[in-house]
Amino acid sequence: MNLYALSCLRVKEQNLQMCADSMYFDLFTLQGWVRSVRSQKKNVFLHVNDGSSLQSLQIVGFFPSLNLRLLTFGSAVEVTGVLKKSPHPKQPVELEAEQIHVVGKCNPVDFPFKIKERHSLEYIRQFPHLRCRTNVFSSLLRVRSQATTAIHSYFKDNGFVQIHTPVITSNDCEGAGELFRVEPSGPAFVDDTNFFSVPAFLTVSGQLHLEVMSGSFSRVYTFGPTFRAENSQTRRHLAEFFMVEAEISFTQSLEDLTKVMEDMFRSATEHVLAHCAEDVDLFHKRVTPGHRMFKVLNVKLLSLRVTYSEAIDILNRSSENFWGCDLMTEHEKYVVKHCGNLPVFVTEYPYDLKPFYARDNQDHPKHTVAAVDLLVPGVGELCGGSLREERLDLLQDRLQDAGLADTYSWYLDLRRFGSVPHGGFGLGFERYLQCILGVDNIKDVIPFPRFSHSCLL
Amino acid sequence: MNLYALSCLRVKEQNLQMCADSMYFDLFTLQGWVRSVRSQKKNVFLHVNDGSSLQSLQIVGFFPSLNLRLLTFGSAVEVTGVLKKSPHPKQPVELEAEQIHVVGKCNPVDFPFKIKERHSLEYIRQFPHLRCRTNVFSSLLRVRSQATTAIHSYFKDNGFVQIHTPVITSNDCEGAGELFRVEPSGPAFVDDTNFFSVPAFLTVSGQLHLEVMSGSFSRVYTFGPTFRAENSQTRRHLAEFFMVEAEISFTQSLEDLTKVMEDMFRSATEHVLAHCAEDVDLFHKRVTPGHRMFKVLNVKLLSLRVTYSEAIDILNRSSENFWGCDLMTEHEKYVVKHCGNLPVFVTEYPYDLKPFYARDNQDHPKHTVAAVDLLVPGVGELCGGSLREERLDLLQDRLQDAGLADTYSWYLDLRRFGSVPHGGFGLGFERYLQCILGVDNIKDVIPFPRFSHSCLL
Repeated sequence: MNLYALSCLRVKEQNLQMCADSMYFDLFTLQGWVRSVRSQKKNVFLHVNDGSSLQSLQIVGFFPSLNLRLLTFGSAVEVTGVLKKSPHPKQPVELEAEQIHVVGKCNPVDFPFKIKERHSLEYIRQFPHLRCRTNVFSSLLRVRSQATTAIHSYFKDNGFVQIHTPVITSNDCEGAGELFRVEPSGPAFVDDTNFFSVPAFLTVSGQLHLEVMSGSFSRVYTFGPTFRAENSQTRRHLAEFFMVEAEISFTQSLEDLTKVMEDMFRSATEHVLAHCAEDVDLFHKRVTPGHRMFKVLNVKLLSLRVTYSEAIDILNRSSENFWGCDLMTEHEKYVVKHCGNLPVFVTEYPYDLKPFYARDNQDHPKHTVAAVDLLVPGVGELCGGSLREERLDLLQDRLQDAGLADTYSWYLDLRRFGSVPHGGFGLGFERYLQCILGVDNIKDVIPFPRFSHSCLL
Repeated sequence: MNLYALSCLRVKEQNLQMCADSMYFDLFTLQGWVRSVRSQKKNVFLHVNDGSSLQSLQIVGFFPSLNLRLLTFGSAVEVTGVLKKSPHPKQPVELEAEQIHVVGKCNPVDFPFKIKERHSLEYIRQFPHLRCRTNVFSSLLRVRSQATTAIHSYFKDNGFVQIHTPVITSNDCEGAGELFRVEPSGPAFVDDTNFFSVPAFLTVSGQLHLEVMSGSFSRVYTFGPTFRAENSQTRRHLAEFFMVEAEISFTQSLEDLTKVMEDMFRSATEHVLAHCAEDVDLFHKRVTPGHRMFKVLNVKLLSLRVTYSEAIDILNRSSENFWGCDLMTEHEKYVVKHCGNLPVFVTEYPYDLKPFYARDNQDHPKHTVAAVDLLVPGVGELCGGSLREERLDLLQDRLQDAGLADTYSWYLDLRRFGSVPHGGFGLGFERYLQCILGVDNIKDVIPFPRFSHSCLL
């Protein structure tokens, strides 16, 4: 039994008031890592954690001959004993050890994390191969795992088919992103620079591949890594990050998209809170006190909605005329703040600001497209989506004007054969985690961050 | 309501014998793509599919004024009408249409798939942007999606934490694989060849990153794309393919690993059969008749188990002495055939054949490591795993002999601080799909295959 199962059992017992002493008298073996050590006369008190939950189990043992020097913070142990009611209210049970075996030693001088010290996220980030051994980063990884599960469940429960969109691609979806190029590294290819016969890149978005699938499925999604070769070292950007992208066929309204975004956000966040309450708590109480996630979760996201033009009106009150300009981070922040520091959907962006696939609203002279971004406090743009231009003639004209009609002839084919009105969006998964946990730096919500001048391990 | 929901409803009704006519008289709107068209006097019969299941819904309508030329195979339609009991036993309900609207036309002359023709997998592979519109490939994508769900569920139900291991890495896990190199493609980097300050590659395995996590979690897994720059165009290899990898702490026996491999295989396959029976059937009956998956599924995988030495004995009967040689595809086939054409675990490989991380059995003079491969009929190696060398001194010696001690000093750290006996394995997801569906060419079980001289879309 692991500690998570044990803590579930405890909760169940407390609820059912069935805390029969007898059931604790089976021998129980716990394998895990020492989180704290205390010795009192000849008794030893340990806290041991196995990674299945934030809670450690208290071990009590009488070992006059035990070499306490080996029982250090971070060492791996196997403890066998009997589970007993604990005298302390905070830990319903403890393990009365009959045997403690040190499986793997941990020299406290060399180990970068020290017992009872609360290391900052910046400090532990220096040790990508060891930081999962801290409480805070193991909590993060459990939250990340549960949030992943929750997102898959949301889509599965709502009839979406999961598509593994490719990492290596000959497309450049956004048209403007900084791309990574892929080449074989072996000497066999010195004279053959094009392994794929065409230039190949790391994907910046699975959208166009999802749109392929929108010609056969009503609802599809993908959840995987995407890449930007941005030479920036901000707290907001990574070279490799995870995106959730969905595409919905037979939709003609941004409402359908914002509803899915909102439902997914709420469903995932509720799941995380239900399955990792302690882990989320750790962040809210210790790492990011004052974080307002609960308020965010409790409002009806969809109720806050402004058009791009309204957002510009908000900005114009404090500054020059912005219409036609892209919203920069500081503008997004201003709009969110103006809306009561709550998530807000901004819709109907200028035609010239969005890529070729965004659906033309044909609302001259303003000329906007049916695009929507979800802005959230602290993080900025969390989701971006649009209806896609499904009308062959309009799309053809736009691609021809951009000189891309040949490159995207396959994409035009999707509109030639059984085209349907459709739309979709992408959510930055790390930004979502930052949003619910209140973590300031994106490097602290991904197991192995990659950014310019850093690719450790 | 989509067609999958409708077909579930039908099954439920049949089971409950509650097929009340009245419930069919609500107006029902179906949006999807035309799979067949037949006109009879002034009646039109259509089959329309929305991708949620293999089953199409029969539409019957009386439309004397309808322009039948637009209702072509592949066109997108929206049909509103009343669901009625069908006179045909194979289709419990049909839709009596009141309105048919052609949403997206499909010119049958240009559309590469023809009505009533059964196109081969090779033929449809030429159209990566359209092949999902065939029955067979949409079935494949549904199976792939369900198999993905099933694998995540298996791990979740068994206490594994999901880790998103990175795609870009500075490691070369296998030490011998053909790697893809990653470089920014923009002009900004002409003078700065190392975006990451170190050479960076596409991952060949998430194992070492999972091992990092094995120092804090009892059970972890990853499921994502991996890469090999192999310049081969066989039916068995892709440049980008998906791997499921798991790592289990506190295990000292290959039995623990083979049990997880077997349980995962059975659990995933049972889930797929329960959720995509029609789709799997399509493959077994039409695409790969005679496929033996059901037999594979019904045997206890674990019962078949030979050591590498026993496998060599089997091979030696028909050929020269192989001991110490790697098993080639033809050898694997021979061993599987010898074992009754059933899946077989081969264990305890020679030390010199396996990478540095495999755990030394210290069984001189034979000298093997605790490694295991799962071989399956038709596909060959489906899984490969090993116990990992957790003993610092042995690992240090081996890395020093290979001149890798500096490169992997971080990996040695994992053994310096709270090291535990552990092991893990990887499963090739595409090979798994080939195995259960009996598909010969790996390019036919992935949405967008990447291989040498091909990176379409």
